[in-house]
Amino acid sequence: MIKAGIIGATGYAGGELVRILTSHKDAEIVWYGSRSYIDQKYADIYRNMFKLVDAKCLDDNLEALADEADVIFTATPQGYCSSVISEEILAKTKIIDLSADFRFKDVNIYEKWYGIRHKSPQFIDEAVYGLCEVNREKIKGTRLTANPGCYTTCSILTAYPLAKEGLIDMNTLIIDAKSGTSGAGRSAKVPNLFCEVNENMKAYGVASHRHTPEIEEQLGYASAEKIVISFTPHLVPMNRGILATEYAGLKRKVTVQEIKEIYDEYYKEEAFIRVLKEGTCPETKWVEGSNYVDIGFKLDPRTNRIIMMGAVDNLVKGAAGQAVQNMNLMFGLPEDEGLRLVPLFP
Amino acid sequence: MIKAGIIGATGYAGGELVRILTSHKDAEIVWYGSRSYIDQKYADIYRNMFKLVDAKCLDDNLEALADEADVIFTATPQGYCSSVISEEILAKTKIIDLSADFRFKDVNIYEKWYGIRHKSPQFIDEAVYGLCEVNREKIKGTRLTANPGCYTTCSILTAYPLAKEGLIDMNTLIIDAKSGTSGAGRSAKVPNLFCEVNENMKAYGVASHRHTPEIEEQLGYASAEKIVISFTPHLVPMNRGILATEYAGLKRKVTVQEIKEIYDEYYKEEAFIRVLKEGTCPETKWVEGSNYVDIGFKLDPRTNRIIMMGAVDNLVKGAAGQAVQNMNLMFGLPEDEGLRLVPLFP
Amino acid sequence: MIKAGIIGATGYAGGELVRILTSHKDAEIVWYGSRSYIDQKYADIYRNMFKLVDAKCLDDNLEALADEADVIFTATPQGYCSSVISEEILAKTKIIDLSADFRFKDVNIYEKWYGIRHKSPQFIDEAVYGLCEVNREKIKGTRLTANPGCYTTCSILTAYPLAKEGLIDMNTLIIDAKSGTSGAGRSAKVPNLFCEVNENMKAYGVASHRHTPEIEEQLGYASAEKIVISFTPHLVPMNRGILATEYAGLKRKVTVQEIKEIYDEYYKEEAFIRVLKEGTCPETKWVEGSNYVDIGFKLDPRTNRIIMMGAVDNLVKGAAGQAVQNMNLMFGLPEDEGLRLVPLFP
Amino acid sequence: MIKAGIIGATGYAGGELVRILTSHKDAEIVWYGSRSYIDQKYADIYRNMFKLVDAKCLDDNLEALADEADVIFTATPQGYCSSVISEEILAKTKIIDLSADFRFKDVNIYEKWYGIRHKSPQFIDEAVYGLCEVNREKIKGTRLTANPGCYTTCSILTAYPLAKEGLIDMNTLIIDAKSGTSGAGRSAKVPNLFCEVNENMKAYGVASHRHTPEIEEQLGYASAEKIVISFTPHLVPMNRGILATEYAGLKRKVTVQEIKEIYDEYYKEEAFIRVLKEGTCPETKWVEGSNYVDIGFKLDPRTNRIIMMGAVDNLVKGAAGQAVQNMNLMFGLPEDEGLRLVPLFP
Repeated sequence: MIKAGIIGATGYAGGELVRILTSHKDAEIVWYGSRSYIDQKYADIYRNMFKLVDAKCLDDNLEALADEADVIFTATPQGYCSSVISEEILAKTKIIDLSADFRFKDVNIYEKWYGIRHKSPQFIDEAVYGLCEVNREKIKGTRLTANPGCYTTCSILTAYPLAKEGLIDMNTLIIDAKSGTSGAGRSAKVPNLFCEVNENMKAYGVASHRHTPEIEEQLGYASAEKIVISFTPHLVPMNRGILATEYAGLKRKVTVQEIKEIYDEYYKEEAFIRVLKEGTCPETKWVEGSNYVDIGFKLDPRTNRIIMMGAVDNLVKGAAGQAVQNMNLMFGLPEDEGLRLVPLFP
Repeated sequence: MIKAGIIGATGYAGGELVRILTSHKDAEIVWYGSRSYIDQKYADIYRNMFKLVDAKCLDDNLEALADEADVIFTATPQGYCSSVISEEILAKTKIIDLSADFRFKDVNIYEKWYGIRHKSPQFIDEAVYGLCEVNREKIKGTRLTANPGCYTTCSILTAYPLAKEGLIDMNTLIIDAKSGTSGAGRSAKVPNLFCEVNENMKAYGVASHRHTPEIEEQLGYASAEKIVISFTPHLVPMNRGILATEYAGLKRKVTVQEIKEIYDEYYKEEAFIRVLKEGTCPETKWVEGSNYVDIGFKLDPRTNRIIMMGAVDNLVKGAAGQAVQNMNLMFGLPEDEGLRLVPLFP
Repeated sequence: MIKAGIIGATGYAGGELVRILTSHKDAEIVWYGSRSYIDQKYADIYRNMFKLVDAKCLDDNLEALADEADVIFTATPQGYCSSVISEEILAKTKIIDLSADFRFKDVNIYEKWYGIRHKSPQFIDEAVYGLCEVNREKIKGTRLTANPGCYTTCSILTAYPLAKEGLIDMNTLIIDAKSGTSGAGRSAKVPNLFCEVNENMKAYGVASHRHTPEIEEQLGYASAEKIVISFTPHLVPMNRGILATEYAGLKRKVTVQEIKEIYDEYYKEEAFIRVLKEGTCPETKWVEGSNYVDIGFKLDPRTNRIIMMGAVDNLVKGAAGQAVQNMNLMFGLPEDEGLRLVPLFP
Repeated sequence: MIKAGIIGATGYAGGELVRILTSHKDAEIVWYGSRSYIDQKYADIYRNMFKLVDAKCLDDNLEALADEADVIFTATPQGYCSSVISEEILAKTKIIDLSADFRFKDVNIYEKWYGIRHKSPQFIDEAVYGLCEVNREKIKGTRLTANPGCYTTCSILTAYPLAKEGLIDMNTLIIDAKSGTSGAGRSAKVPNLFCEVNENMKAYGVASHRHTPEIEEQLGYASAEKIVISFTPHLVPMNRGILATEYAGLKRKVTVQEIKEIYDEYYKEEAFIRVLKEGTCPETKWVEGSNYVDIGFKLDPRTNRIIMMGAVDNLVKGAAGQAVQNMNLMFGLPEDEGLRLVPLFP
């Protein structure tokens, strides 16, 4: 039984880790870390867990936790994990960081886009970017996984096969993404109030959102070139779900069938990627509550572009589900253990 | 492995049966009945089930199905089950009827409130009202279970211990219930369009809703008297969830502690009933996707009334989850098999 | 031209006052008071007002404002108005207080339910409860109007004619009310976040909500007796709208027609009350954005109860619209000036 | 007083025409055409209009109506207007067609994208494309106005000044648009049910939506070249609002200030266009219920692209509001008569 600690257990991603791990047959949660709710019963904060979790929230003492836990999930703000991590801790336990601290190989990019000085650059090299479908083998061997961002998971996986195959002109890539509001977190801010979000839609972080360089780095690896993309996130009045609509110019004439075969080839063994039938557009509701990525596409001969579309549940494949998938890989468990979650509809 | 057939598999309750049974380790679905989508792939209708269900929809041939299935769920309009059921079918298979056809012991009440002639009154006697927490033992032995209505499940369980203990004046009982829109079903009607329901709230079926006599019958058994209640359903702009707010005069002076102890006494062994701490009001989101009933209450000394509150997911404990709970009982399985569903929040 | 000052102009009720007064041909806003946004442009906070309002937010200096304004709207927390009001101010300007400070004739009830000491009880006597349809003549002559609460406006007007006519047993009156989330205000609190409210429904303030004694006082005047009622508010995932479902026992046998005639008799001259046809249930969407109260009812011979239903837009008739209606009365303008707002559907 | 007839008065756009014209001081509705609800009271269908509209719905007899009305609004399916229009009718009355029948100068484009044979191509020449801000003078003189589509109005006005000034490379233009569900109309279809739309997001009509050629034609006039664009509509779980996010490569180096000045120059006299401050992203809620178009933009030096964003209420500026704006122009009234609608927030 893997003993898991969660730092940030009362945020939405942390709450989703609790939901998933509670049903995971090879893991148990030994630490519900939450600075804001120390000594309060976890189930008094997340009442959905009443009668399922009896524990109280604890402070975020990473050193004490490292003695108890086989794996620590840090579902914390940017900068936390890198400020507390140490060789001593990593010698005792594995870490899956849901923040951006270890997602970039180039520390300058992190420091520039996040506006934070990185406190532990010495661990950047060994950290593995935890996009399971791409880095599976590396993840199996690491003690420090950087869990990808929600938008980035969806954006990268949707374009990855075509980027890798060199079919699309990477400099024409435009990603227009839409997210449910749980992506904005659980902190009490006016723009996240029900009445501000409901019956409303807006873009934000235009040409400046911090998931941009993360997508650029990873799709750059895939296409073996340095790329610069447009990425625009939008806030949607729903709780869960990310939809990415991605536009790219085609480098050569291709057929629908050819594209479909490439997607199928890349993803046919993947438990969590569902390549939709030609002409079917993914919908966020079809993946809600599950670890699936649904991917569709449409060729547009008029513009010589392809429109790729991906949908994930931002809290599952976009955060907690992928973190557990990484845990499974790191501990040699079946990759889908605890993650055979059937999407909830409606 | 129990072979299960579903008639009405493409309605919302039918879809939820598919979701739950897909993860049930002792059951498999052998028949996805859907008159509207015969020969179409089930996962083309409910795309959440893509890569999870490969079968096509079939017609609703109950006789053919009876040969194949150990249990048939009829998630069908009122009048269907009673028009096709027969001794021959019941000799071969068990039936769990999600419609109202076999919920009433007095056929006249059924015929009056539903405006339908009952086609098979001869099976009314043997049918068991499938409210598991109340009729557990009877359900274990039956071959025909009448699965309770969504509003009724929530309304009855919320008041049951106090009705049974004779603490409340049953003639003062008023149930004001609020339901998410999946309760209205999946048929294409203008009043159920997004723009008609969203940002809107209304009562409907005032003093005439068909769940009224069902509640009266069952709470009448509990209180051992013939009762007449007010029941008012409301439509709420959310997908899932029923909240019942119930008002009743107290027959004698009671304390908060006394009430709590009664609830605890009745429900302490129940896997799916969570009696909340004093002063905590249930919320539908805490039970979403799960088979739980959350129950809270508040004494009001000013009016000498008690306000009882219950919350369920109308598609789970209010329909498909309870149906599977009944199946488990009828087949001697652990009652919570396939139903350890953790509520999804947010 | 009436010069109007608003204290609390950046709350939701304050924002609605701005929306309504902006189109009012006999009023202009001279003071956008907002402690939180002093010196910021109002239209930078409420961007819907861009190009419509050019002013900046000011502090809440009531004395300075009294020199400039003919009327001051205090859309402020409980206790503010009573702590700053003075004879000097009232000598210069009229006040319409949207808080509860002057709604109760018995200061003890206010202090008990609100847990605040009343700072200016000397003005309680002259304050008029600004429920226009009931106190029209008194409002015309006052300089201090206590604008009713949102729930109370809806609850009282829905039952008023039958209470006044003595048709219903006031001690059986139960009001189950449902409100959109704008009623919870614009302060940044976790329970009001989109993800906490959306897809959720709950009761709150059960048997203790502060609108209870306000309804009791006013319906007590109507029925000429001291009454105690049950009042339960619920939070609904929509921005605007209150629906009150009210249950009461009938004192004598009545017909549908008789009830309808009473409602029509009381409200036939009222510009803002729409008595619906028999059997039609009001919906909050039909009054959205308008000053209407829609009222329906249903007789239930089985229980000898009547179910009365009322719907308002909580920010209009439940707050800002009624405040402007009061202003119109206090300044001798046509009562519906600036309030001929057509409901927005969908 | 202009006598206005509406064909299709019980669709959402028709309903919005009724809402707006009801408050228009120089117009009155003389014909509420609705095939589905003939002889029923209009206010029984759109209950928001109770006590505001007393008329009954009539059939869609355009010839009879032409005798009574000074202007006819056809808020009808594609193909209706062109199948009933005649010289005789146009001799008696003006027509504002909210369908696509007269939006294209090239009948082949219409017939290809809409899959309908055009029944009255002889009127195409004289028809004026009713985008008021662009074709104001022509609209004043016409008797047949083709009211633009909802997506197109938003999409065109957002890019128009930069297209006209030749600043953007039109072949790189990608429009990712998001719409509230009222855009899908009021017909009873499963995909528009509350439970299918709520908590969901999807693209549809990818690379094939019929508003594409309309945008191409109009922005082609602006840029004086034949253009081909990518246009992708998405369905959002909200009632009203369209947000268009538009991406284009810049032809030369420009500054933020330069762009802002161009927008201001083009739109400074426009009553209904609000160019937002640098860096402010438009939100659909800020224009809800009003005839405004809110426009923002962001330069992205990394990609040498500009991201333009526009927001409208699809039923107002995207349909009924613009139709009334056209009526005002056609009848020599102030352009904003009846359209000084203040956006509703929240």
